[in-house]
Amino acid sequence: MEPPAQARRVTIVDVAQHAQVSTTTVSKVLRNAYGTSAATREKVQRSIAALGYRPYAAARGMRGRTYTVGVMLPDIRNPFFPDILDGLTEALRETDYQVLLGPGGCNDEPAEARVTEAMIDRGMDGMVLIAPVSSRPHLERVARTVPTVVVGPHGNSAAYDTVSDDDTLGAALVVGHLVGLGHRRIAHIEHAESDPTRLADMPNAIRAEGYRRAMREHGLAEEIDIVSTTYTQEGGYLGARQLLERARRPTAVFAGADIVALGVLEALDEAGLSVPGDISVAGYDNTSLAALRPISLTSVDQAGRQIGAEAARLLLGRIADPGRGAAHVRLSPTLVARRSTAAAGG
Amino acid sequence: MEPPAQARRVTIVDVAQHAQVSTTTVSKVLRNAYGTSAATREKVQRSIAALGYRPYAAARGMRGRTYTVGVMLPDIRNPFFPDILDGLTEALRETDYQVLLGPGGCNDEPAEARVTEAMIDRGMDGMVLIAPVSSRPHLERVARTVPTVVVGPHGNSAAYDTVSDDDTLGAALVVGHLVGLGHRRIAHIEHAESDPTRLADMPNAIRAEGYRRAMREHGLAEEIDIVSTTYTQEGGYLGARQLLERARRPTAVFAGADIVALGVLEALDEAGLSVPGDISVAGYDNTSLAALRPISLTSVDQAGRQIGAEAARLLLGRIADPGRGAAHVRLSPTLVARRSTAAAGG
Repeated sequence: MEPPAQARRVTIVDVAQHAQVSTTTVSKVLRNAYGTSAATREKVQRSIAALGYRPYAAARGMRGRTYTVGVMLPDIRNPFFPDILDGLTEALRETDYQVLLGPGGCNDEPAEARVTEAMIDRGMDGMVLIAPVSSRPHLERVARTVPTVVVGPHGNSAAYDTVSDDDTLGAALVVGHLVGLGHRRIAHIEHAESDPTRLADMPNAIRAEGYRRAMREHGLAEEIDIVSTTYTQEGGYLGARQLLERARRPTAVFAGADIVALGVLEALDEAGLSVPGDISVAGYDNTSLAALRPISLTSVDQAGRQIGAEAARLLLGRIADPGRGAAHVRLSPTLVARRSTAAAGG
Repeated sequence: MEPPAQARRVTIVDVAQHAQVSTTTVSKVLRNAYGTSAATREKVQRSIAALGYRPYAAARGMRGRTYTVGVMLPDIRNPFFPDILDGLTEALRETDYQVLLGPGGCNDEPAEARVTEAMIDRGMDGMVLIAPVSSRPHLERVARTVPTVVVGPHGNSAAYDTVSDDDTLGAALVVGHLVGLGHRRIAHIEHAESDPTRLADMPNAIRAEGYRRAMREHGLAEEIDIVSTTYTQEGGYLGARQLLERARRPTAVFAGADIVALGVLEALDEAGLSVPGDISVAGYDNTSLAALRPISLTSVDQAGRQIGAEAARLLLGRIADPGRGAAHVRLSPTLVARRSTAAAGG
């Protein structure tokens, strides 16, 4: 068979004719210049979409930009990340930037390196790395090549901007809530952190340390009980199974992420235990799953959309001025109490 | 502040030294050539990852390929799409192709056009469009520019390959299951299809038509009751609210997607109705959410991983031979019965 014929390339003249405006007007809309009404902009953009006009490749290539932002996501199944992404794309909507996502792979440094290098190779103007596990030297190498914002890890690199959440406070909110309900045997399921250099920066490690600190502050140092698995549904399931084998079973489980809490609920249901009747369960991230009525999970709200919006704002600033000093934004979480937590022994 | 210094570019010589092999060996590994052992391959790949070596931009650009596959996802919150993506990335793992995702936007033709054009502009070697709502002429225009596989819609375009599921059979499986449990008043929540030209191709429309046909075949033509919303959690919630206002309430709801069923469960819980005690609920896609014990949703398994793997296989073939005839793969679904469906009036 013959290959299908190549379509004639649509030009700015076609767009102008289709929208019944001048080519100058189309050009203004393309450049986001002043002097066009919202109605005209919309009309031109409809024509651009209808005709499949693509001004970018040539015009933009000449200016040395691809108008592409690469976003690395570690785990497309974790429902927290779409929240961040919503905030990010919302903040970029009025710009010319297109978001492309690179799936990184949970806890997989080589996969992360492959994605970041692939994005650099493909000429991304900027990158947002969400919850990367790569070493700081690797992240700094990336950031020296392309303007980069890192979301999640704490730390104050001079090479890239960061948006993080106060994970110490988040853990304290959960422990305080459970202690207020009369719980003492409060266990935590953490995402295992094997690299000692990352203990000070990674949200999972800071959450676990925040749990320890809060337990001590409530006089519950003796009750500290941490199971190390991963921030996945399976990690929650396996962690809960370990906790259920304890001679003294916890009365409450603080899962380090909502997706982990889902696995905990599964293990408890399988063991014939009711939530919160037998065991209270709290998560972290306040995802859309936590709000589902059959689940109704107490969780910590990190304001994912706001995190994404801040990341976009920082990245646009860094692309405009790559030499500026690094900015570090830390947001404060809140607790959302739902039906999965209740009075101890209740 | 001064911009940070640019890092020296890592070369093939650095990789060879780090891996303690010859540059010829590194080159062979990069080209996927015969004559290297699995152990050597792995050693070289570890060095490539460790040093952050990027052979692609230059070497590949010369060969006119970017080794990038663009995947358009309409809705990153729908847990069915990660299943497809897993199959796709798994099938591409042993190749040099990198997957980049473009979030398309639910039911949003201009957003889809923007994403596909952006991917074309950025030199993707091939594209997989998952559940696109764009018109066939638009899809064919895209496919004439870049090798394209369309996942979801039926139809036999000569310009692109398709992987679809037998949605008529899927709907019949659900209706048959519910009829077998003694249900007669079985309602369906569909994803509204306003474009008459798409009625014959879109999975959502075919599922609704399959429901109608199966109801008629079971002698239940009088009981056909369809609510039109969207394949989102909110669509399920709103659809269920409409059904609950009926004078004769359905005893079973067939939601067109698991994510829709989640919204149905929410609305029923809010109304104080139990599942399956008061109303049975079935979904479609057999996502990881359906398997969650607190949800335990009867659903239709479309074998998302297999769909993704087939799409990857077709795309690689099409990239290798863009002029070959179009291939159309249709898979058959199965029903997975769980606790959300039970005997009518039980």
